[in-house]
Amino acid sequence: MKTRVLTGITTTGTPHLGNYVGAIRPAIAASREPDVQSFFFLADYHALIKCDDPARIERSRLEIAATWLAAGLDTQRVAFYRQSDIPETPELTWLLTCVTAKGQMNRAHAYKAALDANLAAGEDPDAGVTMGLYSYPILMAADILLFNAHRVPVGRDQAQHIEMARDIAQRFNHLFGQGHDLFVLPQADIEENQELLPGLDGRKMSKSYDNVIPLFDGGARGLKDAIARIVTDSRLPGEPKEPDGSPLVAIFDAFADAPARADFRAELRAGLGWGAAKQRLVETIEARIGPMRETYEGLVAHPERIEDALQAGAGKARAVARPFLESLRRAVGLRPMIASLAPAAAPVAPTGEARPAASFKQYREADGRFHFKLVAADGTTLLESEGFADAREAGGWVKRLKTEGAGALAAAPVRLLETTPGAAAAALDALAAG
Amino acid sequence: MKTRVLTGITTTGTPHLGNYVGAIRPAIAASREPDVQSFFFLADYHALIKCDDPARIERSRLEIAATWLAAGLDTQRVAFYRQSDIPETPELTWLLTCVTAKGQMNRAHAYKAALDANLAAGEDPDAGVTMGLYSYPILMAADILLFNAHRVPVGRDQAQHIEMARDIAQRFNHLFGQGHDLFVLPQADIEENQELLPGLDGRKMSKSYDNVIPLFDGGARGLKDAIARIVTDSRLPGEPKEPDGSPLVAIFDAFADAPARADFRAELRAGLGWGAAKQRLVETIEARIGPMRETYEGLVAHPERIEDALQAGAGKARAVARPFLESLRRAVGLRPMIASLAPAAAPVAPTGEARPAASFKQYREADGRFHFKLVAADGTTLLESEGFADAREAGGWVKRLKTEGAGALAAAPVRLLETTPGAAAAALDALAAG
Repeated sequence: MKTRVLTGITTTGTPHLGNYVGAIRPAIAASREPDVQSFFFLADYHALIKCDDPARIERSRLEIAATWLAAGLDTQRVAFYRQSDIPETPELTWLLTCVTAKGQMNRAHAYKAALDANLAAGEDPDAGVTMGLYSYPILMAADILLFNAHRVPVGRDQAQHIEMARDIAQRFNHLFGQGHDLFVLPQADIEENQELLPGLDGRKMSKSYDNVIPLFDGGARGLKDAIARIVTDSRLPGEPKEPDGSPLVAIFDAFADAPARADFRAELRAGLGWGAAKQRLVETIEARIGPMRETYEGLVAHPERIEDALQAGAGKARAVARPFLESLRRAVGLRPMIASLAPAAAPVAPTGEARPAASFKQYREADGRFHFKLVAADGTTLLESEGFADAREAGGWVKRLKTEGAGALAAAPVRLLETTPGAAAAALDALAAG
Repeated sequence: MKTRVLTGITTTGTPHLGNYVGAIRPAIAASREPDVQSFFFLADYHALIKCDDPARIERSRLEIAATWLAAGLDTQRVAFYRQSDIPETPELTWLLTCVTAKGQMNRAHAYKAALDANLAAGEDPDAGVTMGLYSYPILMAADILLFNAHRVPVGRDQAQHIEMARDIAQRFNHLFGQGHDLFVLPQADIEENQELLPGLDGRKMSKSYDNVIPLFDGGARGLKDAIARIVTDSRLPGEPKEPDGSPLVAIFDAFADAPARADFRAELRAGLGWGAAKQRLVETIEARIGPMRETYEGLVAHPERIEDALQAGAGKARAVARPFLESLRRAVGLRPMIASLAPAAAPVAPTGEARPAASFKQYREADGRFHFKLVAADGTTLLESEGFADAREAGGWVKRLKTEGAGALAAAPVRLLETTPGAAAAALDALAAG
């Protein structure tokens, strides 16, 4: 099984060059690793917590989706979707809400910060705190657990939320797993070595310092104008300059290979003027960003193309989420009412006559992985499994489903294909009973 | 427009005779009133707050659904559905969560009771409190607001939750309604005069007093055995008996018409024995409940029939919920990305040439109600309205949609039929602009 990596993208604001270097570029590179299955989503349900301006939500989703697509996110390879296109997410949120201790939410950093600020100001402790702010760690747990993500790359400030998702998952597994894990416990990948780009003034590039270089905003002109404002010392052309410690050089480094970096340093030490150096920086960034900007502008002018990509991504994500949520619903007791529930109506084989039973088929696919499916007597497929690297693992699941019947269904890595709700469960119970 | 009345049915336990007389029978009678559109739902997401036993959830949903159907709920007339079959409910729950003040939840009776109990016991204030218990008034608000219910019959203990739903609705209307109401503010119908049936010992019939008479459980035998245990005085046959104040007579009254009540009283005063009186009570109840019990047992033996009825009900409910949620999503900014979003790509009619526009059609249906729809230039229907008793009301909405464009869509009583997301909105904006 591939490692599932899940990344949520906050849909507020417009990405700048620092976001590109520090977050977007490395995340896209990581999504190309072999044996990784990546889920990228626009966290627009989260955006509603902070923003009640519909036009801003709308614009921000558009710009951020266009940015990630233009920066090279390969939607064939990854699942790229909008959180609000996955109705399984709020549904799972409710299931998790029922097993989450309120005390745990009291300890969330974001809530505690709001509480402390209110207390310091002599206000009611919960003044201005919405239930969205208070309970969003549960929504975040649902985002992660719905896809059984193994790894979630986050900044250190978000590590607590991954801990909470683990706790909630453990509690759910304990209550409803019947000794088996329904949820994978996600790991936080803390981004310790995140590349921090300096801004115009040498401090970390950040909107709050008003020192950002735009990524696509304002076009090539905007990029050039911003770079012209990077702070340098006042050495004149011809005077030797110290490259290390200069924000201009640090930004150059983020877009150049090793030989180009060495050359640039040597030229500055040999007296290259700051104006010429800035021109070189513009050219170096533009060589990378220019073609992306063209894609970006094409996408923003045709939002329907982004919509199509997101709809396709939602389809991909829901193909995972829907059958999994169905198994979680079964685990908590939200099951379709089927004939076999009623003892009086339990199917009994006429004496001496074998009732045609469903049967398991095991097979191997072109990618070398082992699969199985459950086929009804009439030839229709009732469920099919994930691919396993190990044939014994596939065989183990077949054995368990045969022995334990529908009870094992919630934990099994299978998706239901039945057209009659409950048909697979009934067939499994019949196999287990027979 | 019909008055929408919404009733949630808690899916825990098995209904007894007191539930039938006090809640089920009057609710079913009320659903037959003309000009009432009733929504009845099995509140199984709520059940998850209190119950982590999947088998109990499953059994309880089955028995309660079978009870309401057997008691005569007309699924042709009402929408009878399971809460957990309406994914729009948890989604709306999240939208409402984002506008709900945490301070409001702190004041909810159920939470305060748990808090007080913990404080009295010297425990952590939130010990054992789940987020489900804490935030369920928001789920309840979503249940109600999703169908824009006008009236919600509740016991006095639930009145606070309707107040909370009103507050949440008002806040949402204020933030996102652009001067128009998205949500109807629901009214609590406090059931002051709820008929309280006495139990075997004369106190209110309640599971907690262990004095209940089963409704269908245990069959005719179970009913007879329970009635045999009703407490009476020790007067012998032939001695005159005082009917008023006797629980036996009160229960009789609940199932008999006025002449039968008078006869029964006269006979008791004339010396009818308690044993014979109990036999009379059994026959009187059995005449009403017997045929229902047969239906009940048939349904419990065939859960798939209940499932079919609930699926049909979910279809009916979602036909209302889905387009309404879509309009709420638009109101908060969760809109499909469409061509007209981008200023560069805004459709402009070539000079001197009329672009074929969508148009409104108004019509009257067989039931006498007035409707309208928006038809695209290619003849496809983009949206259609509810039926209005008053033609001017229908005309008013047409006018508003033509003038305000897609902005009025969220408030309008219409459902979208478009196959391309955003097509109706774009057509309306074009009409408004032109």
